[in-house]
Amino acid sequence: MFLRVDKLQIELPAPKKQDPNAGAALQELLGGKYGEMSTLGNYMFQSFNFRSKSKLRPFYELVAAITAEELGHVELVSNGVAMLNNGPDTAADDSGDGGDISMSPFEAMQEIRSAASFFSHGGGAVPVNSNSMSWNVDMVTTTGNVVFDLLHNFHLECGARLHKLRVYESLDSGDATGREICGYLLVRGGVHAHAYALALKKLTGVSIEQMLPTPNIPTGKIPECQKYLAEGAHRRLYTFSPGDYRAMAGIWEGEMALPDDPPGELQVVEGMPDGGRIHDLVGQPSAFTPDYAPEEFYEIAQRLTQKAHQGGGSL
Amino acid sequence: MFLRVDKLQIELPAPKKQDPNAGAALQELLGGKYGEMSTLGNYMFQSFNFRSKSKLRPFYELVAAITAEELGHVELVSNGVAMLNNGPDTAADDSGDGGDISMSPFEAMQEIRSAASFFSHGGGAVPVNSNSMSWNVDMVTTTGNVVFDLLHNFHLECGARLHKLRVYESLDSGDATGREICGYLLVRGGVHAHAYALALKKLTGVSIEQMLPTPNIPTGKIPECQKYLAEGAHRRLYTFSPGDYRAMAGIWEGEMALPDDPPGELQVVEGMPDGGRIHDLVGQPSAFTPDYAPEEFYEIAQRLTQKAHQGGGSL
Amino acid sequence: MFLRVDKLQIELPAPKKQDPNAGAALQELLGGKYGEMSTLGNYMFQSFNFRSKSKLRPFYELVAAITAEELGHVELVSNGVAMLNNGPDTAADDSGDGGDISMSPFEAMQEIRSAASFFSHGGGAVPVNSNSMSWNVDMVTTTGNVVFDLLHNFHLECGARLHKLRVYESLDSGDATGREICGYLLVRGGVHAHAYALALKKLTGVSIEQMLPTPNIPTGKIPECQKYLAEGAHRRLYTFSPGDYRAMAGIWEGEMALPDDPPGELQVVEGMPDGGRIHDLVGQPSAFTPDYAPEEFYEIAQRLTQKAHQGGGSL
Amino acid sequence: MFLRVDKLQIELPAPKKQDPNAGAALQELLGGKYGEMSTLGNYMFQSFNFRSKSKLRPFYELVAAITAEELGHVELVSNGVAMLNNGPDTAADDSGDGGDISMSPFEAMQEIRSAASFFSHGGGAVPVNSNSMSWNVDMVTTTGNVVFDLLHNFHLECGARLHKLRVYESLDSGDATGREICGYLLVRGGVHAHAYALALKKLTGVSIEQMLPTPNIPTGKIPECQKYLAEGAHRRLYTFSPGDYRAMAGIWEGEMALPDDPPGELQVVEGMPDGGRIHDLVGQPSAFTPDYAPEEFYEIAQRLTQKAHQGGGSL
Amino acid sequence: MFLRVDKLQIELPAPKKQDPNAGAALQELLGGKYGEMSTLGNYMFQSFNFRSKSKLRPFYELVAAITAEELGHVELVSNGVAMLNNGPDTAADDSGDGGDISMSPFEAMQEIRSAASFFSHGGGAVPVNSNSMSWNVDMVTTTGNVVFDLLHNFHLECGARLHKLRVYESLDSGDATGREICGYLLVRGGVHAHAYALALKKLTGVSIEQMLPTPNIPTGKIPECQKYLAEGAHRRLYTFSPGDYRAMAGIWEGEMALPDDPPGELQVVEGMPDGGRIHDLVGQPSAFTPDYAPEEFYEIAQRLTQKAHQGGGSL
Amino acid sequence: MFLRVDKLQIELPAPKKQDPNAGAALQELLGGKYGEMSTLGNYMFQSFNFRSKSKLRPFYELVAAITAEELGHVELVSNGVAMLNNGPDTAADDSGDGGDISMSPFEAMQEIRSAASFFSHGGGAVPVNSNSMSWNVDMVTTTGNVVFDLLHNFHLECGARLHKLRVYESLDSGDATGREICGYLLVRGGVHAHAYALALKKLTGVSIEQMLPTPNIPTGKIPECQKYLAEGAHRRLYTFSPGDYRAMAGIWEGEMALPDDPPGELQVVEGMPDGGRIHDLVGQPSAFTPDYAPEEFYEIAQRLTQKAHQGGGSL
Repeated sequence: MFLRVDKLQIELPAPKKQDPNAGAALQELLGGKYGEMSTLGNYMFQSFNFRSKSKLRPFYELVAAITAEELGHVELVSNGVAMLNNGPDTAADDSGDGGDISMSPFEAMQEIRSAASFFSHGGGAVPVNSNSMSWNVDMVTTTGNVVFDLLHNFHLECGARLHKLRVYESLDSGDATGREICGYLLVRGGVHAHAYALALKKLTGVSIEQMLPTPNIPTGKIPECQKYLAEGAHRRLYTFSPGDYRAMAGIWEGEMALPDDPPGELQVVEGMPDGGRIHDLVGQPSAFTPDYAPEEFYEIAQRLTQKAHQGGGSL
Repeated sequence: MFLRVDKLQIELPAPKKQDPNAGAALQELLGGKYGEMSTLGNYMFQSFNFRSKSKLRPFYELVAAITAEELGHVELVSNGVAMLNNGPDTAADDSGDGGDISMSPFEAMQEIRSAASFFSHGGGAVPVNSNSMSWNVDMVTTTGNVVFDLLHNFHLECGARLHKLRVYESLDSGDATGREICGYLLVRGGVHAHAYALALKKLTGVSIEQMLPTPNIPTGKIPECQKYLAEGAHRRLYTFSPGDYRAMAGIWEGEMALPDDPPGELQVVEGMPDGGRIHDLVGQPSAFTPDYAPEEFYEIAQRLTQKAHQGGGSL
Repeated sequence: MFLRVDKLQIELPAPKKQDPNAGAALQELLGGKYGEMSTLGNYMFQSFNFRSKSKLRPFYELVAAITAEELGHVELVSNGVAMLNNGPDTAADDSGDGGDISMSPFEAMQEIRSAASFFSHGGGAVPVNSNSMSWNVDMVTTTGNVVFDLLHNFHLECGARLHKLRVYESLDSGDATGREICGYLLVRGGVHAHAYALALKKLTGVSIEQMLPTPNIPTGKIPECQKYLAEGAHRRLYTFSPGDYRAMAGIWEGEMALPDDPPGELQVVEGMPDGGRIHDLVGQPSAFTPDYAPEEFYEIAQRLTQKAHQGGGSL
Repeated sequence: MFLRVDKLQIELPAPKKQDPNAGAALQELLGGKYGEMSTLGNYMFQSFNFRSKSKLRPFYELVAAITAEELGHVELVSNGVAMLNNGPDTAADDSGDGGDISMSPFEAMQEIRSAASFFSHGGGAVPVNSNSMSWNVDMVTTTGNVVFDLLHNFHLECGARLHKLRVYESLDSGDATGREICGYLLVRGGVHAHAYALALKKLTGVSIEQMLPTPNIPTGKIPECQKYLAEGAHRRLYTFSPGDYRAMAGIWEGEMALPDDPPGELQVVEGMPDGGRIHDLVGQPSAFTPDYAPEEFYEIAQRLTQKAHQGGGSL
Repeated sequence: MFLRVDKLQIELPAPKKQDPNAGAALQELLGGKYGEMSTLGNYMFQSFNFRSKSKLRPFYELVAAITAEELGHVELVSNGVAMLNNGPDTAADDSGDGGDISMSPFEAMQEIRSAASFFSHGGGAVPVNSNSMSWNVDMVTTTGNVVFDLLHNFHLECGARLHKLRVYESLDSGDATGREICGYLLVRGGVHAHAYALALKKLTGVSIEQMLPTPNIPTGKIPECQKYLAEGAHRRLYTFSPGDYRAMAGIWEGEMALPDDPPGELQVVEGMPDGGRIHDLVGQPSAFTPDYAPEEFYEIAQRLTQKAHQGGGSL
Repeated sequence: MFLRVDKLQIELPAPKKQDPNAGAALQELLGGKYGEMSTLGNYMFQSFNFRSKSKLRPFYELVAAITAEELGHVELVSNGVAMLNNGPDTAADDSGDGGDISMSPFEAMQEIRSAASFFSHGGGAVPVNSNSMSWNVDMVTTTGNVVFDLLHNFHLECGARLHKLRVYESLDSGDATGREICGYLLVRGGVHAHAYALALKKLTGVSIEQMLPTPNIPTGKIPECQKYLAEGAHRRLYTFSPGDYRAMAGIWEGEMALPDDPPGELQVVEGMPDGGRIHDLVGQPSAFTPDYAPEEFYEIAQRLTQKAHQGGGSL
C-alpha cells in the first residue's frame, strides 16, 4: 500500500517566465527511457514481482523503498514541467472569466516544440519524453533474476544521471525551477546508483560502485547539488515508509560515501525528508483551466472546505 | 511525496494452480485502457497538474487521495498476475539449483497466450493489457479543466467496472485469487465512481450519481463483493495519508450510499485500511528466479538482514 | 460529404457457431497493413490531399469514389467480425437479465487468441490486425505525387488480395459468414486493382494491369466469388455517389475485363449496389451488452421510435 | 453503406499565407485523442458493433447517423490542414515544371514543427495529432454497453469542444481557414454533445445535458460560430442519409435548444446540409505534387474527362 | 560498408515438424527487447555514432566488429523462425499449383499464437517479439558516453543470455533447429558479454567480468553448447572483416577464458567462421509462396541463371 | 553472414556548421517509412524468408545482395546525421575536460526540433523519422510471394526517391554533407528501382521500368548526382560479397541504362565500391561524449592499440 503526503520532496523556486520548451526538455526526465517514469516503473513492478521476498529481504526492501522515492521524483519533475509551461503565478490570474478568446490569446502555442501539450494538457505534465513520445512497457525490465534486475537498475541510474546532466546543461541559468530539480535528482539518483552497486557487490563480490560516477564528472561540480551534498543527502537512504523496509540497512549501512563526494558513513533514515510546499499552479480561465469562468467553482469549493472542517467526526 | 507500507490492501488467497491465461486476463485490469494503470495515471497526473489547488481544495484532494489508493490497486492486481502465473508456492521450490534445463521444463510456456510474459518477465506483471499491448499516454486525460477531468474520471470508473465484471466472468470458479481481486476492486471502484459523481454534482448540479451502477448490475450480485459491502467499504473514502486530504470530506460526507448498496452515510476515514500480507512469490531456480542456484544469495541476504537488525542506530 | 445507408453491400449469412479465433482472423482484413482500414485510410486521405483536382479530375474522382466503397468494406468486415465473435442470434438472447455472473459464464474467453476483444469490446470489431496490433498512420501513404500514390494503391490492392486469400484459406468450410466476405471482397478488390492499373497505364503507358491477378490464382477458382463474377461485379465501378464522380469513366470505360475473368466491357455505374440487410447482432445481458438488464431500455426505445414515426414533420 | 458527395459541409475561405504550424495545430482536431478521427472511429465502430439494433433503434440510429457527419468533419479538417500547409492557390502554380530543385526551394520546411508532414505527405493531412503522433485503437471505445458507450461519447464531445477551443485560440486572427473550421465544428460538436446527453437522459433519467456547455463558455462568444447559431445549426440533427435514421427523432425532437444558445425546438433534418465547394489545392511541381512536370498529365486527364462525358451510356 | 556471404554462421538441422508456436517463441530472440535486433541495433548505431574513433580505436572496433556478427545472429534466428513455421522441406512441395484453396488448407493457422505471422508473412520472420510486438527505437541506447554505452551493452548481453535460456527451456527436446540456435548463441553471446566486460575493466578498473555468467548457470550445462565450447568458440572474437578491426585485440587478447568455461587464452581471429549452408525453405504454392503456380517462374529463373553463368565478363 | 569494412560507400564532405534541424531532416531518409531502415529491413527479412531459393536463385540473390548495400546506406545516412548534429570537428574538441557545465552550454538544444536526439543520443542517429517517430515492423513487407514482394520493393524505391528529393530540397546549399548523401543515394536508389523493375519484367512481361523515374524528374537535374552518373554508377550492381550473388546478373546484365540517364549497358560488379574514409566524429566532453574528462581513456586506448599491433600472432 501507498500513502501520500501533500508535499514535494523539496520546495521548488517559482519560474521567472513561461518557458514551454524548457518544460518539454524536463519531460525527458519524466517520460524518457532514462527518466523517472522508467525508474519508477522498473522498481515498482520489480518489487511487485520480486521472487522469494522472505529469503532475500534486504534486496527486496531496497527495490521496494526506492520505488516510493521514485513516485516523489515523478511528482517533482511533473510539478516542474507544469510550472515552466504555466509561468509565474499571479494572484489574480485565475479570477474573472477568460475574456475575449477570439483575440488569439495562445498564438504562441503553435510554435512551441510540443504544441499538443498545450492543446491537450493545458501545459500539464504527462508520461512522454522531450519529443512527446509515450513512455511504455519497453522501458520496463523485470525478469525476476535478482542479479540481472539489479544490474539493469544500476545501468538505468547511470543513464538517468547522463540524461539529467544534459537536460541541466540546456536550462537557461535563469531557470531556477528546472535547475533545482536537476540538482536534487542528481544527488538522489546518485544514492540509488550507489545502493544498487552495493547490492550487486554483496551478491557477486564485484566492486561495481567504483564505476561511479558515470558520466565521470563529480556531482560537486554542479552548483545546484551543493546544498544537498552539504547536508549529507548523498549518504542517506530513506525508508519512505512509516515502519517497513529497515532490513535494507544491511546493504547500505557500514559503507562509506563515494570518493568524489563529501565523506561520511552511509545511513538509512526511517521515513521521508521534510519536503516542501507544492506550488499552487494558478489556472488560466482563457485556457479553460480550471474553467472559463471559475469564480462559482471557487465559492462552491470554499463552502465544501468549510463543511469538511466543521464536520469531520470520523477524521 | 509518497510512503509505502509493506502490505496489500487485502490479503489474497493463494492460487490453487498455475494459470497463465488467467494471469493474462487479469492484465486487462492492470494495463488496459480501463485498468488500474489508467486510473492511477489519470489521477496522478491530474493531481500534479491540478490548477488553483488552493481555491479548489476539496476537488484537488479527492483526486490526490484516490491516486494513492490506485497505487495500491496497481499493486494488488500485479500481485495477482504474478501469483497466477507462478502458481502455488511450495516451501522447497526455490531451494537447490534449477536442475537439468535441457529437459524442456517450460515447454508449456509456448502455448500460453502471452508467452513473452514468461520469457521476459518470468511471469511477473507489467503495464500491458490482456493482449500484451502496452499502457501508454493515450490512456491519460489531464486537461486542467476541472469539470471535464472529473467527467472523464467518472466515465473511466464506469468503464473500469465493466472491464472488471467481464474479467471476473472469465475466471474459473476455483480461481479464488483473481476473483477476490475483482470483488474488492468492484467495491472500491464503485466508491471512486460515486465520489467523482458527487464532485460533479457539487460543481454542476447534475445528479449524475443516479447513473450508477453502470453497467446496471447491483454490486450485491457478486458473491466476492459481499464481505466488503457488509463491512461498509462502499461508504468509506480513505485519505491514504498520515494527515492530509481531509477537505475532500466536503464532497463525500453528508451523502448516502447508492440505493442498490447497503444503506448508510458516506464517510471519510483518515489513513488506510488494515491491509493484508504480501504473498512471498517463491522463485523457480529453473526459470532463473531469483537465480539458477540461489542458495548462496539466501545466505548473504540472511547475514545482511541480521546486520540490519543489530545496527540500525539511525532507524 | 458522406451519406450513410442502413445496409451492407451484401447480405451476410448468419454464423453457425461462435468462433472468436475466426473473428480474430478476419481482423487481419480490417486493421492489418493490407486490410480495409488501410485501403480506406489511404484513399480517403489521398482524396482529401489530392493536388490539382480540377486538372486531374478522372484520377481524383477514381480515388474519391473508391474511398466511399472502402467505407462499406470496413463496415462489412466489421460486421463479420462481430457476428463471428457473437455467434448465432437467438431471439430470446437479449431478453431477461444476465443471470448469475458468478458461474464463470465467459471462462472460454481466456483461451481465445484476442481475449481483450471480449473484455474490452464485447466481441465487437476494432481497427486492429489479427494479432490485435493497432492500425496506425504508418499504414497510410499520401504523398501528393499522382503516379507514386497510384502505384502505391496498385501494390496495396495486390497485397490485400494476398491477405484475403490466406484468411479465406484459414476459414472453416462451415464458416459461411467469413467466406462470403472474402469472396465478395476478392472480386471488389480486383476491380480496384484493375482500376488503379488502368489509371497508371493512362498516365505512364505501362500495361501494368497485365500483372493481375497477383497472386496468380484466377478469382474463378474461389467458389464464393462465382456469383459475383457471374453477375459482372468484376466489370463494374460504382460512383457510390448520388451524382458525382462520373468523370472516372474516362479511365475505366472502354476497357475490357481481365483475361482470367468472365469477359465483357468495363462499366461505371452511378450510385451503389442493392446491398443487404444488416445483422441485428443480438446482445448478451450476461456480457452487459446492451446491458445486464436491458428490458427497460427496450421499452424506452420502443416509445421513442413510435414518437419519431408520429412526429417527423420536418422529416 | 456509404455514399460520397463532392462537397465539403461548408465552404472554407482560402488561406492568406502558407502556415504549416497552423496546419499542425489543426491536426490536433484531426488525429488527436479528442479529434475527429476519434469521434469518427468511436461512432463508426460502435454503430457496426451495436447490440440489439432492432430493439434500440433510436439509439443505434443516433450513433450511426452521427458517424456519417463525422466523416465530413474528418474531411473538413483534413482540407483545412492541406490548405494551410499549401498556402494560397495561384492559378499558374501547378503549370510548367518544378524548376531548379538544387536551389533549396524547401529550406523552410526543416524548421516547421512537423517536417515529416512535408517530406512524407507533401503537406497533406494524415491521422496524427498536433505533435505528429498517430491516431490508434487506444482512442476507440466500443464496449457494446449502451449506457457506457453513450456516456463515453458525451465525454468525448466535451473533450473535443475543449480541444477545438484551444486550437482556435492559437490561430492567428488572419487565419480565416482554420478559424472557420473551428467555428463550424464547435456548433456541430455541440449538437452531438447535446444529442448524446439527451440519449442518456432518456435511458437513465439523469439531466446530464445541464452540464453543457463544457468548458463553460457560451458558444455565442466565438464570432465564427455566430452565423451557424443564427441559422439554427445548433438545433438541427441531419440524418446524413437518403432515407434512413429517422427514428433518432425520438431522442432529439420535442426537446429545446440549450439555455445559452439561441432558443428553439430541436429538429431532425433528412439528408445533409447544402455544403460548399472543395478547394482545388493546386500542386507544386517543385514538391512533385502532382509531379515535377505535370503538363502531360493534365492533357491526358482532359482527354479522359471528355471521353467520360461523351460516353457514359450507363451513367 | 558491409559485405554478405551466402552462408549462415552455423548449419541448422532441419525441423522435424511444422511448429509455429516454437517459431513464435524464437521471435523473442529476434525482436524482443533483449533479442538480436536489439544487440544489432544498439551496436550498429553506437558504432555509427561513436565519438573520437581515432583516439578510442580498440573500443570503437570492438563495437563495430560485433555489429557484423550480430547481423549474422539476426539472420540465424530469422532462418530458424521461418524453418519452424514452415516445417520440413519436401522436394516436391513447391511444384505444381496450390490446389483447391477452398478446402481450408490453413485452418490450423487460426489457432497459432501469432496468426498474423502466417497471414502477413507466410511464416517468415519479422522484427517482433514472441507476442508479435514490434522492435523499436526504445530498445536502442546510444548515448555517445563510452563507459555508459559499454555498461549498457554488458547488461544487454546478460539479459540476452537469460532470454535465450528461457526460450531454450520452452523448446521441445525434438526441436533440434531451435535448440541448436540457442546453444550456439549462448556461447557467442557469452563472448560478447565477456568482451564488453573486459572493455569496461580496461577503462574503469572494475573486474565486472566476475559477474559472469549471469544468470549463474554454467554454459557447460547446456548440451547444445558443448561442441562450441569444445572447439574454443568461447575464446574467439572474429573481426568479421576482410582486413579491419584488429586493434580490438588490445582488449581481448592476453586475457583468459572465464572460470566456468574450458580454459585457454582469448584470441582474435581475422575474418569469420566457416559457416553452414542456408536452408532452401521450400515454398507452398497453396500459401502463394513463391506463388500459386510457380513452375513458370522456376523456368524463367533457370534460364536467367544460365545466362548469368555464361555471360559474366565483368564478374 | 555479413562482413564489415571500416569505410563508408563514399567519403562525406565535413559539415560547415552544426545544424541539428538538417540532421533531423536527414532522419527521414534513415528511419522514415521510405527511408534506408525500411529498404534494409524489407530486403533483409525478405532474403531470410525467401522461398525456394534454389529454384529462384537470380531473384533471391538480387534481394540478398541489395540488402548488403542497404546496410551501407543506413551507415551513410547515420554518419551524415551525426555529423550535422555535431558540426565541424576541431582537433582539440575532445581534449581537456568538459568545463563549467553550469553555464548552460547546450541551451540551444531546447529549441531544435528533436531535442531528445541531443538529450538521449548526444546527436547520434537512431532509427526514427524526421519527426522522431520510431521505425517499426509496420514498415516491413515480406509475404513470401515473389511477384508481390518485388512489386512492393519497386514501389518502395520510388517512394524513397520522392523522399530523398524532398529532403534534398530542404537542405541549405551550403550543407554539402547532406546534399552529397542525397545525390549518391538518388543514383544508387535508381539502380535498385531499375533492378526490381527488371526482375518484375522477367517474371511478368510487364515493362514496368518504363515508369522510371518516378517522380518524373531526370536524375541528371541534380548537380550532386552528376559525378556518379558520369562514372556509370547508375549502370552498376555490386554483389557486395567476396564471392556470392553472381547469378543476379541474369536479371541485370544484357539490359541498358534508362533513357534519361547516360547510356550504356548494365553491369554486375563483384565486390563493393572503393568507398571513403569514415569521419572521426570528435566528441564533446561537455556533452559527456566520449566522457567528461576523456584524456585517461585516450591513453588507455593508445596502450591497447599498441599492444594489439605488437601481439596479433593470430591475426
